[in-house]
Amino acid sequence: MKSDQFRRYGHQLIDQIADYIDHLEDYPVQSHIKPGDIRSQLPPQAPEHSESFDAILSDFENIIMPGITHWQSPNFFGYFPANHSGPSILAELLSAGLGVQGMLWLTSPAATELETHMLDWLIDALGLPSFFKSTESGGGVIQDSASSAVLCALLSARERSSQWQSNHLGIQQHLVAYTSAHAHSSVEKAIRIAGIGSDNLRLIAVDENHAMRADALAHAIKTDQQNGLLPFFVCATIGTTSTTAIDPVNTIGPFCKQHDIWLHIDAALAGSAAICPEFRWLHNDLHYADSYCFNPHKWLLTNFDCDCFYVKQRSNLTQTLGVNPEYLKNTATDTGKVFDYRDWQIPLGRRFRSLKLWFVIRFYGLEGLRSHIRNHVELSQQFSEWIDAHPDFELMAPNPLNLICFRHRSDNIFNQKLLETLNASGECFLTHTQLNKIYALRVCIGGTYTRKQHVQKLWQLIQKTSQTLQTT
Amino acid sequence: MKSDQFRRYGHQLIDQIADYIDHLEDYPVQSHIKPGDIRSQLPPQAPEHSESFDAILSDFENIIMPGITHWQSPNFFGYFPANHSGPSILAELLSAGLGVQGMLWLTSPAATELETHMLDWLIDALGLPSFFKSTESGGGVIQDSASSAVLCALLSARERSSQWQSNHLGIQQHLVAYTSAHAHSSVEKAIRIAGIGSDNLRLIAVDENHAMRADALAHAIKTDQQNGLLPFFVCATIGTTSTTAIDPVNTIGPFCKQHDIWLHIDAALAGSAAICPEFRWLHNDLHYADSYCFNPHKWLLTNFDCDCFYVKQRSNLTQTLGVNPEYLKNTATDTGKVFDYRDWQIPLGRRFRSLKLWFVIRFYGLEGLRSHIRNHVELSQQFSEWIDAHPDFELMAPNPLNLICFRHRSDNIFNQKLLETLNASGECFLTHTQLNKIYALRVCIGGTYTRKQHVQKLWQLIQKTSQTLQTT
Repeated sequence: MKSDQFRRYGHQLIDQIADYIDHLEDYPVQSHIKPGDIRSQLPPQAPEHSESFDAILSDFENIIMPGITHWQSPNFFGYFPANHSGPSILAELLSAGLGVQGMLWLTSPAATELETHMLDWLIDALGLPSFFKSTESGGGVIQDSASSAVLCALLSARERSSQWQSNHLGIQQHLVAYTSAHAHSSVEKAIRIAGIGSDNLRLIAVDENHAMRADALAHAIKTDQQNGLLPFFVCATIGTTSTTAIDPVNTIGPFCKQHDIWLHIDAALAGSAAICPEFRWLHNDLHYADSYCFNPHKWLLTNFDCDCFYVKQRSNLTQTLGVNPEYLKNTATDTGKVFDYRDWQIPLGRRFRSLKLWFVIRFYGLEGLRSHIRNHVELSQQFSEWIDAHPDFELMAPNPLNLICFRHRSDNIFNQKLLETLNASGECFLTHTQLNKIYALRVCIGGTYTRKQHVQKLWQLIQKTSQTLQTT
Repeated sequence: MKSDQFRRYGHQLIDQIADYIDHLEDYPVQSHIKPGDIRSQLPPQAPEHSESFDAILSDFENIIMPGITHWQSPNFFGYFPANHSGPSILAELLSAGLGVQGMLWLTSPAATELETHMLDWLIDALGLPSFFKSTESGGGVIQDSASSAVLCALLSARERSSQWQSNHLGIQQHLVAYTSAHAHSSVEKAIRIAGIGSDNLRLIAVDENHAMRADALAHAIKTDQQNGLLPFFVCATIGTTSTTAIDPVNTIGPFCKQHDIWLHIDAALAGSAAICPEFRWLHNDLHYADSYCFNPHKWLLTNFDCDCFYVKQRSNLTQTLGVNPEYLKNTATDTGKVFDYRDWQIPLGRRFRSLKLWFVIRFYGLEGLRSHIRNHVELSQQFSEWIDAHPDFELMAPNPLNLICFRHRSDNIFNQKLLETLNASGECFLTHTQLNKIYALRVCIGGTYTRKQHVQKLWQLIQKTSQTLQTT
């Protein structure tokens, strides 16, 4: 692509994205195409000859856009958000333009050093324990997701286990891990990947607020120990996916320390809130943690993928994932004075992702990021109050931050129908969970462009739709 | 960030990237900063208040750019390339602007369907077996890297192994995997991650061309079987990292079939070449494969990350990596008629990466991509001839494609010094390997902007530098 073409189409795309953001509300939030609708519009074979960029962009508009569910819509309240922002998009563009690899310090020193520095910045910004800092025994690294973070934590814990080390073959049968019944599915995925098997993951019962019961955890660990098994890993969640429940790290933590069990804390969504002093309590007990992660790509205006993963002892991680084939050897690595992030993650190659953190943090400043969080928390507290005050609806879980779980006081089928009707309207998008076999609607307020009027409109829609459904 | 600001800075960045590409040759290829040089220029704490985008961009130029090793420089010949291109950069921008998640079909149907379609297109374009198609029993998915692909393949093989399934706990001690001594380090990393342990990976001896010896593989497998172990996985490489050696799939393949061993083919770099009919022979014996991957982000003008990973039986993969928690359940998934790519990879979340493949394939057309490959192969054959004809230098391995391994006819120390001096000049960047304890320089010709004059200049530099070193 010639330089002048790149400039012309680049400017056009920048304007197109700006227009898209300006008019996000005009799109139905959820795509309503049927399986196969996109593929049926694409030719069965790749073109032999070059096509014009105009033709490609035109097909993007006509074929792809109708198949998009608009995650950045201010009316998107599903799952957890994956919020983007102007400075983050531009940093992604710059990273793509540079096209450098950050697998070794040597392969682009700035990519490694900026990443280490941003992760250190965030330790102070979020009130994380200083042992996570690169200047102490720990360190932070950007992973693609909290799923990869928990896998790296679990693998490091597995390798740290002295019995594993002393008798490598087959010892996995003795290892047991623990997490709450409300933990993210990535914990089970990780234990399967690590070869330990789902059978050796205990899903600990939760209390009335859907948080892990520390007494049930202690009981499970003691029982396993009595049966000759080796408890080695606990994943506690600060802000579960179903309800943002907060596991009691203050009681789980000392117990893990006492039994030499690796404690990983998954704060994928909620961690971002600790940037505000009034939510700093979320991180009160992190000094018990061996590893921790949170996702700026969820709620801190940074494009996916950007999970910040910290370990207390970086040697645990690098001994677990380190490789050093001849073709990657270099004098910088040999000095031992640099981080080679290939040894901190599953893949070898890596993009220059810290650019977007740098752009976002500087462009908004910590104060700007705090108002972003505060605004969402305030809106969701307001929404909670509306639900609570309405005779037809009830709250299903505490709402410490920005996720409201609620239901219509009717049966599961009605609530499922309510969700489907709301989403089919294209006016909003929400998702669901189950709490003690009761179907609950989830509204998570964390979009970059979500304002009071969108939450008000959502509430009107919910009331109106449920009334209509009741009378039909 | 306000719309007009986004437009203004977006246009500015597009021009900045275009200027960067126009002047890539003016930058020293390798950054020569010292460890800590970048960090020492950054404030120890994140800013409390918003900073101007101009200030950020100015720091990018002054602080970050000197710490960049320019992978897109036409004088970059190190490792394997990670080539980008105009249409690919613009597709990355668009993907960041949309900010959608492709974890489920439902969460943006177009992201899933375009990905499936592009991976099917590439099956025909590269002459891969049709059983890899989504319309048959197989399917393709974009992974971040060949490291993640081999891990997913190995995990699927582990789960497929009937003995593993019938006796889950501790059976790993019986599983054994095989790859050549020249395979990528990611195979060892995968076997460690999977809990099987490096001790159970056999590094099979190579022949005089650094390709796996099929007889040595057969011998190792038989010995292990006689010892009651269970061979379950072979990774063969088409184009090894050290020398682009090509393992003999035509003899390895039938043997794997006979013994019910999963055969994964890693063609990370070389696979792209099969887009040309004259290199289609690379894929001649792929009908023996259970899984296969190649990286358009290496040599097909597509930005990292983009590894195309195929499996013959997609159920092997989805049974291994599938999770379905309540909060992700939906009617589209329930129909069984859609792919949910979360079950095809380690992480849950995923970017809209097929956009860049679509943009690249259409913008260049298959013919354009073929000339890209042909040009590099031609240049490296020319470079090979120069080396071969010069009395002071010798070729160290066959060069079927675009990687030349060679040395000065002197000792290892001299050759290492030669490499370091060349890279220190800033005029070029190459890397090394070891072949039978002999230090060899590697020149890989695959950059988007690399032309004949750059290869000629490289050859002049090598001759001149070695002469200077000899006389000092």
